[in-house]
Amino acid sequence: MSMIVNRRDMDFLMYEMLDLESILQSERYADYDKETISAILDTAQQIAEEKFLPSAAKLDANEPTFDGEKVHIIPEVKEALDAYKEAGLFAAGFDNDVGGLQLPWVVYQIITGMFTCANGPLIGYAFLTGANANMLNTCGSQELKDIYLDKLISGNWFGTMCLSEPQAGSSLSDIRTKAVLTQAGHYSITGTKMWISGGEQEISENIVHMVLAKIPGSPAGVKGISLFLVPKFRVNSDGSLGEKNNIALAGLNHKMGNRGTTNTLLNFGEQGECQGYLVGKENHGLANMFHMMNEARVGVGYGAVMAALGGYLYSLDYARNRPQGRKIENKDPQTPQVNIVEHADIKRLLMAQKVYVEGGQALIMYCSKLIDMQKLATNEREQQHIALLLEILTPIAKSWPSEFCLEANKHAIQILGGYGYTREYPVERLYRDNRLNHIHEGTHAIHGIDMLGRKVKMYDGGALKSLMYEINQTLEQARSDIDLENYATQLDNSINQLQKTIDIVLSCQDKELALANATVFLDAMGHIVVAWLWLWQAMAAKKGLQTAINSDIAFYKGKLAATKFFFAYELPKVGSQLNLVAELDSTCVDVSIEEFIGT
Amino acid sequence: MSMIVNRRDMDFLMYEMLDLESILQSERYADYDKETISAILDTAQQIAEEKFLPSAAKLDANEPTFDGEKVHIIPEVKEALDAYKEAGLFAAGFDNDVGGLQLPWVVYQIITGMFTCANGPLIGYAFLTGANANMLNTCGSQELKDIYLDKLISGNWFGTMCLSEPQAGSSLSDIRTKAVLTQAGHYSITGTKMWISGGEQEISENIVHMVLAKIPGSPAGVKGISLFLVPKFRVNSDGSLGEKNNIALAGLNHKMGNRGTTNTLLNFGEQGECQGYLVGKENHGLANMFHMMNEARVGVGYGAVMAALGGYLYSLDYARNRPQGRKIENKDPQTPQVNIVEHADIKRLLMAQKVYVEGGQALIMYCSKLIDMQKLATNEREQQHIALLLEILTPIAKSWPSEFCLEANKHAIQILGGYGYTREYPVERLYRDNRLNHIHEGTHAIHGIDMLGRKVKMYDGGALKSLMYEINQTLEQARSDIDLENYATQLDNSINQLQKTIDIVLSCQDKELALANATVFLDAMGHIVVAWLWLWQAMAAKKGLQTAINSDIAFYKGKLAATKFFFAYELPKVGSQLNLVAELDSTCVDVSIEEFIGT
Repeated sequence: MSMIVNRRDMDFLMYEMLDLESILQSERYADYDKETISAILDTAQQIAEEKFLPSAAKLDANEPTFDGEKVHIIPEVKEALDAYKEAGLFAAGFDNDVGGLQLPWVVYQIITGMFTCANGPLIGYAFLTGANANMLNTCGSQELKDIYLDKLISGNWFGTMCLSEPQAGSSLSDIRTKAVLTQAGHYSITGTKMWISGGEQEISENIVHMVLAKIPGSPAGVKGISLFLVPKFRVNSDGSLGEKNNIALAGLNHKMGNRGTTNTLLNFGEQGECQGYLVGKENHGLANMFHMMNEARVGVGYGAVMAALGGYLYSLDYARNRPQGRKIENKDPQTPQVNIVEHADIKRLLMAQKVYVEGGQALIMYCSKLIDMQKLATNEREQQHIALLLEILTPIAKSWPSEFCLEANKHAIQILGGYGYTREYPVERLYRDNRLNHIHEGTHAIHGIDMLGRKVKMYDGGALKSLMYEINQTLEQARSDIDLENYATQLDNSINQLQKTIDIVLSCQDKELALANATVFLDAMGHIVVAWLWLWQAMAAKKGLQTAINSDIAFYKGKLAATKFFFAYELPKVGSQLNLVAELDSTCVDVSIEEFIGT
Repeated sequence: MSMIVNRRDMDFLMYEMLDLESILQSERYADYDKETISAILDTAQQIAEEKFLPSAAKLDANEPTFDGEKVHIIPEVKEALDAYKEAGLFAAGFDNDVGGLQLPWVVYQIITGMFTCANGPLIGYAFLTGANANMLNTCGSQELKDIYLDKLISGNWFGTMCLSEPQAGSSLSDIRTKAVLTQAGHYSITGTKMWISGGEQEISENIVHMVLAKIPGSPAGVKGISLFLVPKFRVNSDGSLGEKNNIALAGLNHKMGNRGTTNTLLNFGEQGECQGYLVGKENHGLANMFHMMNEARVGVGYGAVMAALGGYLYSLDYARNRPQGRKIENKDPQTPQVNIVEHADIKRLLMAQKVYVEGGQALIMYCSKLIDMQKLATNEREQQHIALLLEILTPIAKSWPSEFCLEANKHAIQILGGYGYTREYPVERLYRDNRLNHIHEGTHAIHGIDMLGRKVKMYDGGALKSLMYEINQTLEQARSDIDLENYATQLDNSINQLQKTIDIVLSCQDKELALANATVFLDAMGHIVVAWLWLWQAMAAKKGLQTAINSDIAFYKGKLAATKFFFAYELPKVGSQLNLVAELDSTCVDVSIEEFIGT
């Protein structure tokens, strides 16, 4: 079995749940059908398994180092990224007009998923480059695009995102990096950026930073932030590389996990002029950044799903092959031991991983299909409906996997026992990698506040209505199925409780109190959305079962068992969470700083 | 503030909650009063802060290595253990008659807690030695004690516990290590032991292994296991060290956390005779081991609490000093930022840590007081009551902190954000250290089965009745307090649900199904017990508040806020968990191996 993908499940999501074929009929995706997609996935899977997976443990054990001059990274990283580049995969997410493959986003995400599962920290360099290029393509001037875009999309130059500063992590309104217009027409950048992934490396010929900075005299706070393109090496008019652009690596951060991606503290313009070029309009930096933010945030959630998938597949394989103990009613020590997958609690740990991983994957794939549909939408109403769905689902797509897929990684370690706690097995590494995802691209709390303080009421509750419209489509079908109607009722009840909770929160005048438990709300709402996606998967599985043969029967039955598990073990947790939010419990708002330990 | 202990909370637990003074009046503890205890704690705290805490990060970053000949450990480990030895702390847990300090167990535990919080992997060598000596003292012959006991209690020789083997981790009935009686009167030991903490090091003059092995011809399974003392160096009749005893280090395990304690794979008697000495009777090995098991298991839970305490104190200090963002209703970016402790979600993460850490500490201290009371009990009925309480509380004391204090460590990382994810700050290390505690001394699942399959029904439910008797004492008092009666009602309802759930499970004939969700039950029952301990703390805090002045007021109010938090945020989770157990949900029992991924 593959340790990076369950291709059967990908086919199920694409064709049996999400009806990707309806999208493939569009002109935009006319180049693709089931066969070509399968062939592309085969190629990507092969590169991921052969070039990315084998070095994952080595890269973790040998993180990049900085000798004061250069950053050293094990050679397997460049070799893998070269293979990725040669296969044209840097361009896979881009449209034909800029030299890309114009793949459906769903398919592109499945590809990225395989690489992330194989070696998340390594592929990070490519993803950052893609996001950077995407931003340039969307917001940059033709002049900048002419110089930089091809180099990024081809994977010759890599890109980064420079938002945070040492004193401004979650609070971007407090950034201090300055950009001063020079007489030559470019800007002079000075300041310090923190947590910059891929901020320095010797793999690519050049590094293109997208930097948030303030032009003196611009408004205070986020309204005065602009976006700049700042290259490591200046670029001559003929496209060749010029001198260094005075960006100094102050140091590498040493992380718990995700060690293979360099994470840097960069000083801009400390020892000479650092030239930057405005991307988009002055003071529109954050808005431009947010163009990409939804995709980046969904990407973080997807990273969490993929780290958990690695743990799930590995621990499943281990559980099927590790003899230990006997069935609970067998007290005879002279009988052979059984494989631990026979024990009910091991099955529980596997089933919990399955519902988190496959539920998370369905969530990300659904969001990805919305991105495809957005590109295909022919009228404004449809476009708005899809845009609102993405708005309200993004905090969940980012945060739900970060929370629950980390729990899945915890379970994978537990299945391996002592072995799982050692670095000889991959499950502890994946757990360490995954702990990052609560933190970056907006902390868990920030997404809670975004959801409960903004998303549920935006457009007069329009985003929530769009979501409920979609959920109700599924509920209506499920209600008429005798095997599924109980799930529909249970989900309906949870949704009613969710709606009542939202009403209470929105009518509370004390905003701090109203949002005090926003994170709890976000987790609960995420469970409700994922319950819906499991019910949807159950419907697709029941349909599949009607004509299934051989191993497909077990596959579909597994989907039904997982749905049962989610509705028995997971969805019931939502009740007490929503009660808490609806009670507007003030414990945390009220507690004084001294009360924590009495001083 | 100290980063390893909240002494005010220790005084509260000892004197205001657990009434340690009543114990100090006994003849056994006549040497101690509040002042002497405080002085001993001062000394221990100073050694822990000065000799143990400073090397914790270095030890984690420089784990022990094996060059094929010797194991190398950073010198700070020996220096710290020498200071611990010189202060007589190796003997602190032992009675006067064997050269110990005969401290109340509660006090001894507070001492061990400070060292664990400061540097858990380092103090591990001493704890293993203590457990080893304790077993020898309880079960060993006078001849063995004469040779080994003093050396262990003085800390000149260290000890280990050798239970697991590569093919037998959780299933001890399948161990294969053999012990053959020789004509010289000792046994010849052959076999391989896995996961042996402290199994090799060059710090102590000798290492004394306690090894489980089978004498040929003994019964199959756990009934045929005997216990042997096996020294690294043989000991001459005059007590001097003889030649090596043919125990070969096959390798060190490389762990995610807890890196400072060597963890070894040992081959006994592979290259020459390895001499072992029977401890206790033949075939009583596991019973003898279990003599110590309750304390060892409570110790594991305590280790989890202490790792979480380190994260709690550190993240609290950080939150009070890190400015970031503004209060939710303040949109003006030109106002100063507030410290993040002002944000409701940060307070929630701190409060969750507080209830897990201080709730876990109360649980361990209560169990420790029971151990003291056991030693003082004057009649059989009292002794049995206490023994039963310890029986039923031990799975909770081991497992509840392992689960929820790990969650606390997760929150500590979240508060520090990106910084928390780096190895420059201690919170990620403590999180890695703590992940071990679900696994060793019986996995989480094994304790679930122990609780629901054995403990709740032992002595005709006598252990459960003993626990309920104690809980009801608290409930009765709380019911007559207008501020606390709602908590009493809530806890009462949870207990009723617990009792009904137990009845359903016990009447189920299908044992596999009945115990399929035993782990979920264990977590829920743990929450009920800890809710009781919080209610008890609230009563003590209310009493204290009546005469409190200065900082004590905030301390007591903090206890009341934490109780409110536990009953609002935590105890309600129990409802859906117990429902699940009571429904005898068969999803996990029924799912077939192929259904997980369809192959």
